[in-house]
Amino acid sequence: MSSLFMFEKPLGMRDSLPEIYETKYIVKQKMDKEIKQWGYQFIETPTLEYYDTVGAASAILDQQLFKLLDQQGHTLVLRPDMTAPIARVAASKLLNEDLPLRLAYNASVFRAQQREGGRPAEFEQIGVEYIGDKTVSADGEGIALMISSLEKAGVQKYQLSVGHIGFVQAFFEQILGTKERADALTKYLYEKNYVGYRQHVDNLSLSSIDKQRLHDFLKLRGGEEIIPLAYKLIENGSGTQAIDDLQQLWDILLDYGVENQVRFDLTLVSHMSYYTGILYEAYAEGVGFPIGSGGRYDLLLAKFGKNTGATGFAIRIDHLLEALGSLVRKSDIHCILFSGDRRKEAFELAKQKRADGFKVITQDINGVGNVDACTKQYDEITLLVGKAGMEVVK
Amino acid sequence: MSSLFMFEKPLGMRDSLPEIYETKYIVKQKMDKEIKQWGYQFIETPTLEYYDTVGAASAILDQQLFKLLDQQGHTLVLRPDMTAPIARVAASKLLNEDLPLRLAYNASVFRAQQREGGRPAEFEQIGVEYIGDKTVSADGEGIALMISSLEKAGVQKYQLSVGHIGFVQAFFEQILGTKERADALTKYLYEKNYVGYRQHVDNLSLSSIDKQRLHDFLKLRGGEEIIPLAYKLIENGSGTQAIDDLQQLWDILLDYGVENQVRFDLTLVSHMSYYTGILYEAYAEGVGFPIGSGGRYDLLLAKFGKNTGATGFAIRIDHLLEALGSLVRKSDIHCILFSGDRRKEAFELAKQKRADGFKVITQDINGVGNVDACTKQYDEITLLVGKAGMEVVK
Repeated sequence: MSSLFMFEKPLGMRDSLPEIYETKYIVKQKMDKEIKQWGYQFIETPTLEYYDTVGAASAILDQQLFKLLDQQGHTLVLRPDMTAPIARVAASKLLNEDLPLRLAYNASVFRAQQREGGRPAEFEQIGVEYIGDKTVSADGEGIALMISSLEKAGVQKYQLSVGHIGFVQAFFEQILGTKERADALTKYLYEKNYVGYRQHVDNLSLSSIDKQRLHDFLKLRGGEEIIPLAYKLIENGSGTQAIDDLQQLWDILLDYGVENQVRFDLTLVSHMSYYTGILYEAYAEGVGFPIGSGGRYDLLLAKFGKNTGATGFAIRIDHLLEALGSLVRKSDIHCILFSGDRRKEAFELAKQKRADGFKVITQDINGVGNVDACTKQYDEITLLVGKAGMEVVK
Repeated sequence: MSSLFMFEKPLGMRDSLPEIYETKYIVKQKMDKEIKQWGYQFIETPTLEYYDTVGAASAILDQQLFKLLDQQGHTLVLRPDMTAPIARVAASKLLNEDLPLRLAYNASVFRAQQREGGRPAEFEQIGVEYIGDKTVSADGEGIALMISSLEKAGVQKYQLSVGHIGFVQAFFEQILGTKERADALTKYLYEKNYVGYRQHVDNLSLSSIDKQRLHDFLKLRGGEEIIPLAYKLIENGSGTQAIDDLQQLWDILLDYGVENQVRFDLTLVSHMSYYTGILYEAYAEGVGFPIGSGGRYDLLLAKFGKNTGATGFAIRIDHLLEALGSLVRKSDIHCILFSGDRRKEAFELAKQKRADGFKVITQDINGVGNVDACTKQYDEITLLVGKAGMEVVK
């Protein structure tokens, strides 16, 4: 192979070198622990799933799926998200319909990229799924646990935006009537293109009162004070129910004491088409993408034969690391350089230091091409060579 | 989708439910820690690689590769092992040819199965690669670290078989002359079919002295005492060098104090075609497959443009777990059942218990279909419902 090509990786694929790996390891351990302490149980699902089951249930666009044929001729996909596989496992093995089920995962998901645009085609998520509980308490727990996980990870400045997809749908249905017209407007919200939204609204053939309502909708961002404004804009029952949910959610978040980390944004919509109710996204200072997102999906489990509600969130490890920066020192390894006669002494010293919690390399000096360069790599060098007494260098 | 089909997974794909997951998590943490304490640095590589680079460099049969086309028309593979991807990263980014490099990984690898035979198509490995050091000390470190990792994981009864592929090749070349004849005999060794080996030898057109040598070769299994027997069987230089290596290795293992966990088996060969020198396999009582394997591969790095030696091993997590059994209790979660009026009290109690290290669920009693069944799931239940005082049940 040519020397340029032999080092290449497929589009959107990344290596994690030691410093990044270690930072990730530390952060994941902290979040794992917190999620377990909230009573969630971790599970693992395979990287490959059938296209006809999990592939079809997932909310990811078909063109973003990595597909392949197995040796029996079935189409497989690399899992594009974890919510659908976990719904499969829960529905087939774990779920007792009388009891809520709290599951968690830490896994890579795969989304094919059309071109090199800095977006990864494989990325890692830590997340939870809380299945079988339709109360707003379950939504509140998701938000509070995401906040608690981000705190444990050490994120300093972040905020959660909370919306309700049921409200957006009810509100647009009330004013626009058809799904096509609602979808056109929703697209602007998804792109957070509020200028485009306003222009689109101005060009609609609607009464000036309705146009004003669609403009006023964009103001539904802030604290508890937006709740009465939302009630004023909505007329139909499911829209009102959505605001009732948000009022109740706010009271729950007050009881958790996390209200300062949360802000309502009723214009929030998601590319995850399975969301049906309260949904949320976390933003950290200096990171251009959400570091986490979540929401209620009350229809997905039905695709696996269980008629029950669920809510969950995922934190994107790559975006989280952007918010955190590096957490590890480049090298904290001791090196014991030995020659044959003093090998045993080297092994015994290393064993003792490792038992004390240090990271220790024992290195045959004959295996090193450049001893000077070698010694520069490490914090501390011990030379056990020839007849001389033990000597610590540096 | 039909209800039977919707729960299916592709051939050889598995879910890990909570108990298995947690056992794995604990065991991996212990081994991770040990490997880091020996100065190895963990890295991560992508699940997908180019077929023409890593796919071609790997030792896995083409029919066992999961292949797919990317959107640019290149053939990709799901990585079938970690040694080739790590060689790619080391050669392109990390390796200074004057200095040994110690890397580690914990990752899933993928090997397509022809039929359902209980063999997983995706399985997890923890392993190390020690690159850029041709001394026997490097081989000894691999063996000692594998033993130390298995000890930390808690494996009780296990043994490592150590051979030298260079010796097998030199010995067969000396007697059989051609690679074809050597390959035919090697296949019996790989299958550990010693009866077939003997019959094959008896049918060869060789002198009775050479046949006796080929039979005697099977006796080269045991402790240090087999070394002089091996010297007697071999005539050519590279075979003698291999035995010199093994003698030196034995002295190193004595210095590590691990000689009781190791047994020479000079008939050991591997399906990993890139091995060139000392190689080894670990077996645990009651497990039908090796729980780990490793060896020297001095030619692989050259495929990525670096002319340097390397050795490494991988431990198979699934086989290791078979040796260990379950390490976790099924449920050690406390549950606080609350109603709306006492929600805040519930959240505060949970926060306090979590700070004390407990796993605590707070559960809205309205979200539970069957309260009796719910309380049976947990070790301890606290009811914070209505006006009553706090009451701990069970």
